[in-house]
Amino acid sequence: MKKRDVSEIVCSIARAVAEIGDTWKILIIKELFLHNLRFDAIGRQTGMSPHSLSTRLAELENDGIIERRPYQQGPTRYEYYLTEKGIDLWPMMVALNQWGDKWGSPETQEPLNISHKTCSADSRPVVVCSDCGEPMHARQAEVHMSAQSANDRATRSA
Amino acid sequence: MKKRDVSEIVCSIARAVAEIGDTWKILIIKELFLHNLRFDAIGRQTGMSPHSLSTRLAELENDGIIERRPYQQGPTRYEYYLTEKGIDLWPMMVALNQWGDKWGSPETQEPLNISHKTCSADSRPVVVCSDCGEPMHARQAEVHMSAQSANDRATRSA
Repeated sequence: MKKRDVSEIVCSIARAVAEIGDTWKILIIKELFLHNLRFDAIGRQTGMSPHSLSTRLAELENDGIIERRPYQQGPTRYEYYLTEKGIDLWPMMVALNQWGDKWGSPETQEPLNISHKTCSADSRPVVVCSDCGEPMHARQAEVHMSAQSANDRATRSA
Repeated sequence: MKKRDVSEIVCSIARAVAEIGDTWKILIIKELFLHNLRFDAIGRQTGMSPHSLSTRLAELENDGIIERRPYQQGPTRYEYYLTEKGIDLWPMMVALNQWGDKWGSPETQEPLNISHKTCSADSRPVVVCSDCGEPMHARQAEVHMSAQSANDRATRSA
């Protein structure tokens, strides 16, 4: 299967990673969350080549994850902003950040801490169950597959 | 910057995506969460070529995210299991799943629902603030950068 065909799998995770399952795209999205919005500055922080950066920015814009807004005329230069769809990637970024904190090397632990603006400085995001409000871990989760998804999997395993 | 050098950025997100910022690796991890553990079966569900699959499995094993356990002798065949480090990717998978549900095409919405084993069938994971317990969205979050991370960024922007 080609990477662009991954989105044909009947699975929200497959659809998501078909659009953003890429080291560089995630680093770009991180820069935009940190309000680092301009081409050269994003390039410096991520270490990406101009070609690699412009390719990814075009794909992210095409997928509706970011949008360009001019900040200078003659020549026109742009800043890049997350759209609503892009801002909705925030829980994924939090999850990656917490995983990197826990499993990365000790000398780079917790370089970014996230707090709730309306609360104390040491508040942080936690995944809980919408029903009981208790923290929800992998082993307490049960996956229910839709009939369509189960059919799609059965077809592939045949 | 080469992809393998991304982990040198003083940032937990960079360290995380250096290891798992790859469409195929995330699809493999999804299969293991669904308890689809064998080489051929993972290949069928993800549509990956044997070469591509074995390369990714070796990298994931090398990074301590998965481990092999023999299930058959002569010839020895293996099943692949998530380690604790791999299981800790669950919040990221949940985030990707919810993002794909929301922003994917309507005909593939919510192919996987996740519930809490101890609660009702329609419970689902939510990101809340550890302090006040209210749902925590991007716009209510404040990022605090460590001095080390701020220095690393200043060096890059110089």
